[in-house]
Amino acid sequence: MDHFAAYIDANQQRFYDELCAFVRQPSIAAQGIGMEQTAEIVRSRLERMGAEVQTLRLPGAVPVIYGSLGKGPRTLLIYDHYDVQPPEPLEAWITPPFEPTLRDGKLYARGVADNKGNLMLRLQAVEAWLATNGDLPLRINFLIEGEEEIGSVHLEAFCHEYAQLLKSDGCLWETGGRTPTEQPTIHCGAKGMCYVELVAHGPAYDLHSANATMVPNPAWRLTWALNTLKTADGHIAIPGFYDRIRPPSTADLQALERIPLDDEVLLKDWNIPAFIDNMQGLERLKVHLFSPTCTICGLVAGYTGEGSKTVLPAEAHAKIDFRLVPDMDPREVVSQLRAHLDQQGFGDIEIREFGQERAARSDINAPVVRAMSAAVERAYGEPPVLFPTMAATGPMYPVCEAFGTPVTSGAGTGYQGTQIHAPNENIRMDDYWAAMRCMGAFIEEFAKA
Amino acid sequence: MDHFAAYIDANQQRFYDELCAFVRQPSIAAQGIGMEQTAEIVRSRLERMGAEVQTLRLPGAVPVIYGSLGKGPRTLLIYDHYDVQPPEPLEAWITPPFEPTLRDGKLYARGVADNKGNLMLRLQAVEAWLATNGDLPLRINFLIEGEEEIGSVHLEAFCHEYAQLLKSDGCLWETGGRTPTEQPTIHCGAKGMCYVELVAHGPAYDLHSANATMVPNPAWRLTWALNTLKTADGHIAIPGFYDRIRPPSTADLQALERIPLDDEVLLKDWNIPAFIDNMQGLERLKVHLFSPTCTICGLVAGYTGEGSKTVLPAEAHAKIDFRLVPDMDPREVVSQLRAHLDQQGFGDIEIREFGQERAARSDINAPVVRAMSAAVERAYGEPPVLFPTMAATGPMYPVCEAFGTPVTSGAGTGYQGTQIHAPNENIRMDDYWAAMRCMGAFIEEFAKA
Repeated sequence: MDHFAAYIDANQQRFYDELCAFVRQPSIAAQGIGMEQTAEIVRSRLERMGAEVQTLRLPGAVPVIYGSLGKGPRTLLIYDHYDVQPPEPLEAWITPPFEPTLRDGKLYARGVADNKGNLMLRLQAVEAWLATNGDLPLRINFLIEGEEEIGSVHLEAFCHEYAQLLKSDGCLWETGGRTPTEQPTIHCGAKGMCYVELVAHGPAYDLHSANATMVPNPAWRLTWALNTLKTADGHIAIPGFYDRIRPPSTADLQALERIPLDDEVLLKDWNIPAFIDNMQGLERLKVHLFSPTCTICGLVAGYTGEGSKTVLPAEAHAKIDFRLVPDMDPREVVSQLRAHLDQQGFGDIEIREFGQERAARSDINAPVVRAMSAAVERAYGEPPVLFPTMAATGPMYPVCEAFGTPVTSGAGTGYQGTQIHAPNENIRMDDYWAAMRCMGAFIEEFAKA
Repeated sequence: MDHFAAYIDANQQRFYDELCAFVRQPSIAAQGIGMEQTAEIVRSRLERMGAEVQTLRLPGAVPVIYGSLGKGPRTLLIYDHYDVQPPEPLEAWITPPFEPTLRDGKLYARGVADNKGNLMLRLQAVEAWLATNGDLPLRINFLIEGEEEIGSVHLEAFCHEYAQLLKSDGCLWETGGRTPTEQPTIHCGAKGMCYVELVAHGPAYDLHSANATMVPNPAWRLTWALNTLKTADGHIAIPGFYDRIRPPSTADLQALERIPLDDEVLLKDWNIPAFIDNMQGLERLKVHLFSPTCTICGLVAGYTGEGSKTVLPAEAHAKIDFRLVPDMDPREVVSQLRAHLDQQGFGDIEIREFGQERAARSDINAPVVRAMSAAVERAYGEPPVLFPTMAATGPMYPVCEAFGTPVTSGAGTGYQGTQIHAPNENIRMDDYWAAMRCMGAFIEEFAKA
């Protein structure tokens, strides 16, 4: 591996410039901005490394880039995505979201942490391997989609259509990084997701609010409807919502006890006085990894500018995500939500559906997990902390669990301060180079696992 | 009056052009845009007519333009304002809000109905009087402020400071127009107002919504807090809120019965299936004129753009107006709101205060009201419908009621389709010329009343 690390060092400036060019290109799936151009960057990058590349596209979807290279007894699937979250609120960025800027060893840009950094460092690691070790000792199939941040809306259908491209001995997930206390991590699962927008309709146009005596106000309708979804004690009050939850296994709970706690780091970073219900330590971690959520991600109605404006809004909108755990079914959650709203007298409230994903879990003792553990130990000088699942979501169910493919995270730049999905998203460049070295070790470890 | 009407006809194009120039100039009080320039247009217009003009300014306030002209046994105070509501949402305007556009006899522009049209037609009516009748038969004092749309935040202090400028025998209020069934109207009162913004605070920045398991969400806090303010049956649940309400008098209720009903016109125009609680007719009108309100005018938190974004918002905001009736005290409403939120466990929710105004009522048989009735009958060929009060708000309490000055509306361009405070605000130009003729008749009638 000395040659491998030396190659990274020798090419650091070029790799850095390539990363900057990649994040400078917007690719905002929710807003349909820059998707084709970004897919093309990924495609040509894979081709330049000698991969066989297919640009695959379901009707209405942005392209999935599928690239294969190397051969050997094992096949590794690498899942990443080239789309990013919307950059709003723009005014909260210290430097513009699509002008990558280095400050104090951190590179700031929308998508640099989620997921363009990891995607690029893995491509660059393969380049470094080929340049220093010759052929790859295994088959690598890159599956790189462009709709992850909108719930991978077409990926389930894609995985059915192209099932033969997905079969593999293990999958490297898009994520990878460190705990808030700086220990490297491995995650072997992901929560599911059901994202909806609730819309309450009122008068034909925003009225003078003097008419509030007699005209039903959609902002009040929405408030009252939301209030029935989750009570102030945090209980999600939709009938049946909790019915299908598979409780954590003994192995899950044992893994939990080996995870170092980081309550103080989180409280300080987020500047909050306490967690919900004053949860702490293991209890908090258990809820965090194994409980579903119902979150208001956005609210908008009427006048939202400076000062006062006296209007009765024509519409009111709430964006809501439900994070799901095994064995919850996102389609069933939508049905339960509709039935609940109807039953509570809110049949007038429209539900618009966005992404839906099932939760997924992998065997935490699978060869791909053991190989990543060994690679982490070589690259970081310490064993990883193993999480049975992320609290976050991805299309791990259709990509991995549906095929029985074990999955691991790792070889990524995550750390507590990334601010993914938020303004001033960033990575630490030292993490970038360490993750690239880890990726090299992982190729070697998984080939022989 | 033939000469007066002929003068208007002869100068119609110039008057129209002057109105367009006036509404083309933005004057958005809530956003501090164009206030000084607009005040200057008003000042110079009054000076050109020969008025003595004072530009009066309290610390931190935009100018009040005070212009006096004419002499006689009676003094008339005319209250208007040169500021307008914010034009947002811009995309809902068919033509831009500050590019006045004539379509089908209607002039579209922000502020053309509220209140720049009425202000300009009254100035032009005085010009027409002077040109055709010589001296005015009474004293007219114009009080023209620039903060009406933000709750006249400095006007109460102004009225104390300049009390000697406000004493008069009657006041012509800014408003005037027709019922939805096209009958001319007179209003002799206004509701009060208490405008607040509630702010719920969460983590230091928008978080990845995976953390919703453990981080309190300000959008939920705000939803739960709002839900305690007003229940789904419309009851405002703040203790003490209804305690000071003065019930409508016998005269109020008698006046109510003479008001023609227009339920169907309103339901059709607003495209709503029914009024709140299926109210109809006189019951609806009684609630509309004599009940207070609690209205969500705006909501904003987290992501409000297209599609989905999975964030846990750092803050959540609700803009709320309370419309008050006599004898409610807006300062007391804020105290009651604070106490209620604290008592309900929402001590963390911040209250930001915007405008506060008391409701006002005038004697509906005062000379100024009778003079306007006679003027309406001359100008429109039918007697006006007399409303004891508007459902809308203005600083009528400090300007009129505090001095015992009777007040009337009239000589204005209001009609059901104005869309004031909303996109595509407009007036019908025929109404503009009719209101100008009414203003001429009113000068004559009030001078001799």
